[in-house]
Amino acid sequence: MPKKIAQLWGSAFEKKTRSRVIDFTAGRDVFGVPPADVVLLPYDVWVNLTHCVMLYRRKIIEARDAQAILTGLSEIEALVKRGKFPIDPQQEDVHTAIESCLVAKYGIDKAGKLHTGRSRNDQSTTDVRMYLRDKAVAFAEEGLAFVASLIKLTKKYESYAMPGFTHHQHAMVTTFGHVLLGWALMVVRDVQRFTHWRALHNRCPLGGGASYGTSIPIDRELTATLLGFDGPELSSFDGLTNRWEAEADLAFAISALMNHLSQIAQTLMVFSTPEFGMVKLSDEYSTGSSMMPQKKNPDPLEVIKAKASIAAGSLQSLLGIGKANFIGYNRDSQLGKFVLMELIEETLPSVSILKGTLTTLTVNRERMKEWCSKGFIGATSLVEQLVARFHLPFRLGKIVVEKAVRYSKDQGVVTFPSLQRALKEEKMSVQISEAQVRAWQTPEVILHATSSFGGPGKKSLQESARILTQELVRLKGWVKEKTNQRKQARATLANEIKKVIN
Amino acid sequence: MPKKIAQLWGSAFEKKTRSRVIDFTAGRDVFGVPPADVVLLPYDVWVNLTHCVMLYRRKIIEARDAQAILTGLSEIEALVKRGKFPIDPQQEDVHTAIESCLVAKYGIDKAGKLHTGRSRNDQSTTDVRMYLRDKAVAFAEEGLAFVASLIKLTKKYESYAMPGFTHHQHAMVTTFGHVLLGWALMVVRDVQRFTHWRALHNRCPLGGGASYGTSIPIDRELTATLLGFDGPELSSFDGLTNRWEAEADLAFAISALMNHLSQIAQTLMVFSTPEFGMVKLSDEYSTGSSMMPQKKNPDPLEVIKAKASIAAGSLQSLLGIGKANFIGYNRDSQLGKFVLMELIEETLPSVSILKGTLTTLTVNRERMKEWCSKGFIGATSLVEQLVARFHLPFRLGKIVVEKAVRYSKDQGVVTFPSLQRALKEEKMSVQISEAQVRAWQTPEVILHATSSFGGPGKKSLQESARILTQELVRLKGWVKEKTNQRKQARATLANEIKKVIN
Amino acid sequence: MPKKIAQLWGSAFEKKTRSRVIDFTAGRDVFGVPPADVVLLPYDVWVNLTHCVMLYRRKIIEARDAQAILTGLSEIEALVKRGKFPIDPQQEDVHTAIESCLVAKYGIDKAGKLHTGRSRNDQSTTDVRMYLRDKAVAFAEEGLAFVASLIKLTKKYESYAMPGFTHHQHAMVTTFGHVLLGWALMVVRDVQRFTHWRALHNRCPLGGGASYGTSIPIDRELTATLLGFDGPELSSFDGLTNRWEAEADLAFAISALMNHLSQIAQTLMVFSTPEFGMVKLSDEYSTGSSMMPQKKNPDPLEVIKAKASIAAGSLQSLLGIGKANFIGYNRDSQLGKFVLMELIEETLPSVSILKGTLTTLTVNRERMKEWCSKGFIGATSLVEQLVARFHLPFRLGKIVVEKAVRYSKDQGVVTFPSLQRALKEEKMSVQISEAQVRAWQTPEVILHATSSFGGPGKKSLQESARILTQELVRLKGWVKEKTNQRKQARATLANEIKKVIN
Amino acid sequence: MPKKIAQLWGSAFEKKTRSRVIDFTAGRDVFGVPPADVVLLPYDVWVNLTHCVMLYRRKIIEARDAQAILTGLSEIEALVKRGKFPIDPQQEDVHTAIESCLVAKYGIDKAGKLHTGRSRNDQSTTDVRMYLRDKAVAFAEEGLAFVASLIKLTKKYESYAMPGFTHHQHAMVTTFGHVLLGWALMVVRDVQRFTHWRALHNRCPLGGGASYGTSIPIDRELTATLLGFDGPELSSFDGLTNRWEAEADLAFAISALMNHLSQIAQTLMVFSTPEFGMVKLSDEYSTGSSMMPQKKNPDPLEVIKAKASIAAGSLQSLLGIGKANFIGYNRDSQLGKFVLMELIEETLPSVSILKGTLTTLTVNRERMKEWCSKGFIGATSLVEQLVARFHLPFRLGKIVVEKAVRYSKDQGVVTFPSLQRALKEEKMSVQISEAQVRAWQTPEVILHATSSFGGPGKKSLQESARILTQELVRLKGWVKEKTNQRKQARATLANEIKKVIN
Repeated sequence: MPKKIAQLWGSAFEKKTRSRVIDFTAGRDVFGVPPADVVLLPYDVWVNLTHCVMLYRRKIIEARDAQAILTGLSEIEALVKRGKFPIDPQQEDVHTAIESCLVAKYGIDKAGKLHTGRSRNDQSTTDVRMYLRDKAVAFAEEGLAFVASLIKLTKKYESYAMPGFTHHQHAMVTTFGHVLLGWALMVVRDVQRFTHWRALHNRCPLGGGASYGTSIPIDRELTATLLGFDGPELSSFDGLTNRWEAEADLAFAISALMNHLSQIAQTLMVFSTPEFGMVKLSDEYSTGSSMMPQKKNPDPLEVIKAKASIAAGSLQSLLGIGKANFIGYNRDSQLGKFVLMELIEETLPSVSILKGTLTTLTVNRERMKEWCSKGFIGATSLVEQLVARFHLPFRLGKIVVEKAVRYSKDQGVVTFPSLQRALKEEKMSVQISEAQVRAWQTPEVILHATSSFGGPGKKSLQESARILTQELVRLKGWVKEKTNQRKQARATLANEIKKVIN
Repeated sequence: MPKKIAQLWGSAFEKKTRSRVIDFTAGRDVFGVPPADVVLLPYDVWVNLTHCVMLYRRKIIEARDAQAILTGLSEIEALVKRGKFPIDPQQEDVHTAIESCLVAKYGIDKAGKLHTGRSRNDQSTTDVRMYLRDKAVAFAEEGLAFVASLIKLTKKYESYAMPGFTHHQHAMVTTFGHVLLGWALMVVRDVQRFTHWRALHNRCPLGGGASYGTSIPIDRELTATLLGFDGPELSSFDGLTNRWEAEADLAFAISALMNHLSQIAQTLMVFSTPEFGMVKLSDEYSTGSSMMPQKKNPDPLEVIKAKASIAAGSLQSLLGIGKANFIGYNRDSQLGKFVLMELIEETLPSVSILKGTLTTLTVNRERMKEWCSKGFIGATSLVEQLVARFHLPFRLGKIVVEKAVRYSKDQGVVTFPSLQRALKEEKMSVQISEAQVRAWQTPEVILHATSSFGGPGKKSLQESARILTQELVRLKGWVKEKTNQRKQARATLANEIKKVIN
Repeated sequence: MPKKIAQLWGSAFEKKTRSRVIDFTAGRDVFGVPPADVVLLPYDVWVNLTHCVMLYRRKIIEARDAQAILTGLSEIEALVKRGKFPIDPQQEDVHTAIESCLVAKYGIDKAGKLHTGRSRNDQSTTDVRMYLRDKAVAFAEEGLAFVASLIKLTKKYESYAMPGFTHHQHAMVTTFGHVLLGWALMVVRDVQRFTHWRALHNRCPLGGGASYGTSIPIDRELTATLLGFDGPELSSFDGLTNRWEAEADLAFAISALMNHLSQIAQTLMVFSTPEFGMVKLSDEYSTGSSMMPQKKNPDPLEVIKAKASIAAGSLQSLLGIGKANFIGYNRDSQLGKFVLMELIEETLPSVSILKGTLTTLTVNRERMKEWCSKGFIGATSLVEQLVARFHLPFRLGKIVVEKAVRYSKDQGVVTFPSLQRALKEEKMSVQISEAQVRAWQTPEVILHATSSFGGPGKKSLQESARILTQELVRLKGWVKEKTNQRKQARATLANEIKKVIN
Repeated sequence: MPKKIAQLWGSAFEKKTRSRVIDFTAGRDVFGVPPADVVLLPYDVWVNLTHCVMLYRRKIIEARDAQAILTGLSEIEALVKRGKFPIDPQQEDVHTAIESCLVAKYGIDKAGKLHTGRSRNDQSTTDVRMYLRDKAVAFAEEGLAFVASLIKLTKKYESYAMPGFTHHQHAMVTTFGHVLLGWALMVVRDVQRFTHWRALHNRCPLGGGASYGTSIPIDRELTATLLGFDGPELSSFDGLTNRWEAEADLAFAISALMNHLSQIAQTLMVFSTPEFGMVKLSDEYSTGSSMMPQKKNPDPLEVIKAKASIAAGSLQSLLGIGKANFIGYNRDSQLGKFVLMELIEETLPSVSILKGTLTTLTVNRERMKEWCSKGFIGATSLVEQLVARFHLPFRLGKIVVEKAVRYSKDQGVVTFPSLQRALKEEKMSVQISEAQVRAWQTPEVILHATSSFGGPGKKSLQESARILTQELVRLKGWVKEKTNQRKQARATLANEIKKVIN
């Protein structure tokens, strides 16, 4: 008799649910959220280091001041890395926490010079922009890994015939590979949105001051470069007034991505009902019930669906915050910070969770195929062959086959006599054989014939996969380039710091 | 020379910003959020106690089992009150945490009986419903306190003449008291929404099981009563499928409230610009700048505005989660839990912060009045007097005064010669004196004349305030009644527990 | 050979799609939208008539003026009824159109008196409020008709056993009747929201003027009564500043309703896939494809789903419009008018379309039942019987059956040997027979046992239906009462007019 | 005495309100909306022509069939241009209307061949994509015209000193030109979003069929080119399943734009209150009141604000429609069509209306300047000079000036004695003169000193304007290129048609 229970379910499982899946589904029920400024600490230190180096290089502060400040900041950075730099709520924010710490250690006559030529407004906006920039790249990376995986799966399942749906009803025969490639394509667009984000927003707000610049002769080109930006923003107040915008852009990109993931999730959920039985999720990506012994639930997929709605709502919050703002910085916009942070933390793991679900599931090839010879799913193909081979006008061909479908009721395929009856009624004579009627409704013949570009036919599918792979390579290059820009900036900064301290 | 800096601003302030204001504006920058299930702990214990009492009363479990479980739960409740009952993320949720704790202490042969006739689905939904119910009452209370305060201020400022605006332009003379009463009215509607919430949702989901009931002969009437509900839900699956709904209803009520608060906030913000200078916020409800020495910023008001947008977005998330759900419980809905919890925690304090802002601000009566004799603000009153005394058709009267306004340009009031010129042009003869023209444009005369119900005239204002006060009393009664229902339920439960344990 | 084609599909259909279904699905593709003020014409005439009667009764205008105006308005009303009163866009709005028409016919010296003591602001707000009020009642009526229909269907299908789902997976046995009753319940809450709407908003804004009242001695009680309101609003500017609010409240009520309808739609869509085959939609509520001969699509259900999202978005627009408004009327709010009108016109027909879909569909009772003996759907019942009869702790019972499920793999029901093996492993000895194990997993036994309140057992279902029917009766009474209030107001007004004209 | 009234206001206006402004503000009150498919007619004809040419070139249909169809389509196109091709609601949609018309005129044996190898699904998606593409270019063009105008205004007002605001309070001195340049920048980003839209979505869905391709050997490269696309989509079902996506992307781009316009609108509205009096809107862009003679209202600005919220709501509708879609075409997505169309028609004119408002308003330079010497607005500059010239640590300098501000109460500028007192209290000795203290707080000195990049100093402003102009030129090139691609496609198609018909 068990003495302890760790989970209220699981004895019917053959494999244990992965712990990251449990974490993903339990989520905010059992995990809290840290203060937003704790997340920004590394960025604020980076900004402080950069600003200090610039003040020194511009001779706005002296070497001994810069040495004290840079040393202090480096100490703080080390603490941050070890999670040992606390922010006292009384101090209002990360900026105050860091400046207070420096003042306490190195005195206000030195550390009190750090805030020269800047405001919390531009500092905070810069911190957030850098955080968002990192996350945009992270989303792109996750997305590309998923795309790569989907292309692989396309290959694996390229011959798995299955009913293609429209309106939740069987439409025409397709393959599971074809479906997977379509999914890859949408994720590629999602990744592109993150690249568009950067094209708009990788400019540095630092130096904007409170909103209207400063009379201190700062060097904005230098700070922009040391922070990995493409350059400073052209107006001191634009970025500060529009602090909702880079946030909303990213939230929209996430929202579009999550909508796509929710589509995959929903489709897999329906496919794995007992009635469909087309796919079976791995136990590793399922959970159980506290009450019902037999249950295996696709919780991670449901959670992904919910997060798509959370993304849409968060986007809405951000757009609302940005509406009808008066010129200059407004505190309203600061609340966009935690909204977007939370959204990012909630959604980013979804990509790999869904990837894991897809790569570990089992496809019931027979069940899929079985449905490809029922429900008149070959009727369109039959019309098209009538059109192609006997030059019947499509509209007439369709009317004839519609009638034939009606006459073949309960057979699931158009029968030869039904078709003949329909043709006769419509006063058409076509030299068609019973074998042809049968053949043109079989999945193999249909898939072979559906060779138009973008379709499920094996050759078209491979062609699309080839083109898509090129795009994948291009986008991986983008990720690499942007990752390098960041590294380069940090390296240059480190060098500058060394010059001052040593 | 200061050795420490606690805040990057404040030496220009005469009073210190209140610490709860700092907390409110700093918010999520420096405060984290606990796991949702930690917040639900007290409710889950209550539900567990109730369920156990019912199982015993129904003889589904024996006295010694019930004794062990109830004792264990009481111990847990004591820990929860002291903040000493941790939830291990590995345990997935609060339900597992509590059951595990009981099993560890009292053995699975006793504690393993607690989950008879229920599921986490109905349990969790019940926990959340009770949490929401408490919060709905809390919002109503906060709202009523604000209304009471606004009625008092209406009285205080009933004679403070000021320009009434439409389209951001001066429209007609009103009083600050009239504005305050209008604000009170909208908050009263907000409170009513919370009462409507309860009318829809104070029914108990416990006993719904996973969604389709249970074959254990549970007593749902009893549990509903002991939990302070008006009765059990009529269908076992409705509440579980619609777990987004009580959430969305509350989010909407909050959203409407926050929109109203955001209107007050925006109006006060504009009124306290240097250009308007009509009100001055207390230092206690202002903050400063890290860079600009002279700044006093209405941060709390801006934060309230932002939170109105956050509320709207959260509502959107919840509506999205509830769309197109398949029958029965879906995990998607569980994510509504933290969305709404966060929304509640973010918005609830806004009411008293705004109340504080309003009760501590200073009104510049002269400035307000000064604008009541400029900008042709008395022109409508002049038309109305022409109409009332000389039986001019309103449309003609207005055309005449429009012209007179044009001819009186730069004077700010319609002059006698201008009016005469306009009357002549329109071929109208009216026996009006220069004194009348002047008098009918003065704020005292206008306000005295504007005696129609709902208007700014002192008598109408007092009449409206009287009616509103009756409504306030009625709603306070509602709060009291609902608070008693809760207390009564807990008392009855305590009594039941005593019967088992002793 | 057909000479004309009216539709690109349909020859496979046995019944023709109903024309109102075609209209519903084609919708805005082929139907335009009239100007908002054309929709408001009847309300504006009503308001004008009322205002004129009041001006006369207060002796603000003379009998001959009132006679001219009332006669003119009655003529306009007759034109409006025949759709023959056009609004020229040059005239800006319905108010100008009507006043111009009266002035042209009866002269400015009479008709020019109509606008005494009011503004377009309060007039327009009153028009819209009355339109919304009518629509709120219309939604309530549609909702109650749907509820009545659902209760009937509950009875019809009370014995149709089917798998109940959670997480899209089979959970426990339920009945289709049980599902239908759950749906009825949620629609009842939707109807209640429309009653709550009226409790908040049936107060008359007329007399508020531009926002700050009027010095003309109008009688607001009288106009409120003649317009069917419960009384005038307590503040002249509240309703005008908050012109988004009654709109948003209604949009939320619609949004909640549409979410519920979308749940029913989605469930039916999944149930009518070939794989589920549990229900078959009538051809009358299906549409076809332009390309695929065999297709029957649940278009109306998909359209309903989409409209749930449109409702949520419209609500969002309205909340956005209402955020951070400055005091007094702002033009922004006028754009809420067409947003909500459109939403109402788009969504109102959904209720009866869904009712029609449900009452005309065919249920495949065998297919539903078939799934009630597979997939271990009786496992929970088995645990509960072990618990109830042999006093096994639930947690242990569940672990045992979980294992038994694993050992009975591919059998779909827990087998006797599997259970024995699991019991043995867990070192438990229970005197259970093979017949019991089998019986406790059959749908008949399960449903009979699931007799707890709110569950699918026949008696509980009938009890819930009985209570629900009482609520239906109560709400029908509400509709009747409110319809009478409207009629009464119009009759009183007609009487007043007669007194003036004759 | 006037016999007719066309408008209920206006006699106080010196210039008449422009009729397009009246149309813009009256909007949906007096204008209806046409059916969506009427708007799509030109696109559907284009798609039909292209598809027919391709069928012929691929020898799928014969010359005489193609001739009949192309002739018929050209006739229809001529009717469409003259607004004479009606769509009968009974025909469900534009596709049926056109095919029926062709069949009626040229017989089903010819015209019945047009629908070969396609479905309404891909056809409709293609129509909409082309419509969206045109509108994306139109938004970009409008946006660029606005940017050009804003850059010109920047130059005009580069020396107009005014208070820069943060938190609605005076922060530091800036210029109106600086504000205008910031606004230009945000509109440039908006234009870029429309270019990003095209980068993602200018691929042709035609040929996707119902969702799963066709066995007819169509040429998708050819149709893509003739329709002005960059190529066909890589998957037949992706674009059809995601019919919400190009729509949502555009709605987001519009939403961001409208948020920016709403910021400009709100700022101008506050600036044109009597209290601010900094700008005066032209009568041509103002409207009046039906009741109040003196009113001039900024209605167009309020309407723009409201439309920002409508945009956000529409985006939400589209995201909701796209969530959790099952694979393949779903009818839900078709409702996104009218949602986005309406949004486009509502918002597109906003850009030039706002441009007109800005170019016709009058700036009160004196009023703006007056505020630049009050309210301690020069205090930051004073700190910075203390820091720059006397090497005071910024933090200390700020504390000193904060105190000095307190001691200079009611003076509006920091006085020399106050500063001395503060310095003394903080035990600092600085050799500063009374003249310096005064000078450093004057707007001329401050603006001259604020020369950092992005700030309001004349040189930095001109530098930013120069860079921005380069970007403007680049984006104008983009518009030209895309306009040419469209023209080229139509020309090639015309040529292909000629080859068939002649």
